[in-house]
Amino acid sequence: MGRIICCGLGPGDPDLMSVRADRTVRGAKHVAYFRKKGHPGQARRIVEGMLAADVCEYPMEYPVTTEIAFDSPDYVRLLASFYDEWTERLARLARAVDIVVLCEGDPYFYGSFIHLHARLQGRLEIEVIAGIPGMAGCWNAVGQPIALGDDVTTVLMGTLPEAELEQRMRNSDALVIMKTGRNLTKVRRALASAGRLNEAWLVERGTMPDQRVARLMDVDAADCPYFAIVLVHGQGRREGSAE
Amino acid sequence: MGRIICCGLGPGDPDLMSVRADRTVRGAKHVAYFRKKGHPGQARRIVEGMLAADVCEYPMEYPVTTEIAFDSPDYVRLLASFYDEWTERLARLARAVDIVVLCEGDPYFYGSFIHLHARLQGRLEIEVIAGIPGMAGCWNAVGQPIALGDDVTTVLMGTLPEAELEQRMRNSDALVIMKTGRNLTKVRRALASAGRLNEAWLVERGTMPDQRVARLMDVDAADCPYFAIVLVHGQGRREGSAE
Repeated sequence: MGRIICCGLGPGDPDLMSVRADRTVRGAKHVAYFRKKGHPGQARRIVEGMLAADVCEYPMEYPVTTEIAFDSPDYVRLLASFYDEWTERLARLARAVDIVVLCEGDPYFYGSFIHLHARLQGRLEIEVIAGIPGMAGCWNAVGQPIALGDDVTTVLMGTLPEAELEQRMRNSDALVIMKTGRNLTKVRRALASAGRLNEAWLVERGTMPDQRVARLMDVDAADCPYFAIVLVHGQGRREGSAE
Repeated sequence: MGRIICCGLGPGDPDLMSVRADRTVRGAKHVAYFRKKGHPGQARRIVEGMLAADVCEYPMEYPVTTEIAFDSPDYVRLLASFYDEWTERLARLARAVDIVVLCEGDPYFYGSFIHLHARLQGRLEIEVIAGIPGMAGCWNAVGQPIALGDDVTTVLMGTLPEAELEQRMRNSDALVIMKTGRNLTKVRRALASAGRLNEAWLVERGTMPDQRVARLMDVDAADCPYFAIVLVHGQGRREGSAE
């Protein structure tokens, strides 16, 4: 009986993979990863040059990405059957061999592997290797502490309603906003309403060779990269204050 | 002119250090790390057996830890002059050689290195190597996704006032509570008031050999380990719901 090993790859720079992830990827005989149809896939790109010559690859291609609304019944149904099918396929393969599932960032933190994990759990042995979350790669790219002292840090998805985003942006010290992409204009408006826009950074492909770090205010509103995270740094609630 | 290289060590298991951190630690000639007086130090313990035989070690011993109140003027003054002194000492050493500063977790995420970073910045070259944050090691130890879908994740310090803790615990999907220790009773009360106590986990020394994972409800109130993180898992706001 084989296992499913979900390998967190970290933020993008292969040098930031854990020692265990590095060893696991190099030793893998069967490797699966999610990707958008017609694209190499971000996870696959991170391990380029690391896989064994005789590795078997299983690209798990999303049936849809942004063609239909993510909250439509069609989208939900298509995605669910996609995850169902791959669950069966991986479970079948894992009867005989170990399967390494590549996952960007940390698998347990908003990772796509979660959908397979929920379906595979209890059926076979699953090992999850922690990784540096994408957001940590992004704040490392800015080169300033994201949070210190008694700061409250809030992680928000750009898909949330604007009023909720604004209220949470106002009430938190440090902010991480993921799933920006086509929500970037809304995120920017919410930050402006909350009085935090001038503190915000946009980090695209953090720790990757083509990384971009910019003040969000200076980014063209039409420029909505998918792999971008917005950061607002905490100032340290206790430390440095006169309280 | 040497550099200061702050090396994020990850949550505790040396196998979860990044490839770059592993290489940096093994190649270091001069290594500095914080520790409590009379203790080996958590960061130093993680790299046990990895340092070169002829390495120079600089243990930076806190002048106080919990002997006096952290918000008293004495504490603030003692800590500030401790950081000032080590800043000068490291800056002097780094004129001739590279200094590797060991830091548990991720240095930019509530790390002690922040205090040196603020003082050293602009004076010499600083490189910071991202690490897996301690909290990620802890949710990996529980073996369930901490956040998914549109979940809001909030990171709170147990040092915050109880009313604020309660309100934030009520209003967030996923929760990470750090700096528990002697605040654990307060954290537990706040979770109970917010109706989240039955979902909470206590993880002590996540990913380390003597790791402990328990339902917070089952932990003796008198048992206040310092290296513990409290977690409440998000349920996935969109995914899995009928919205």
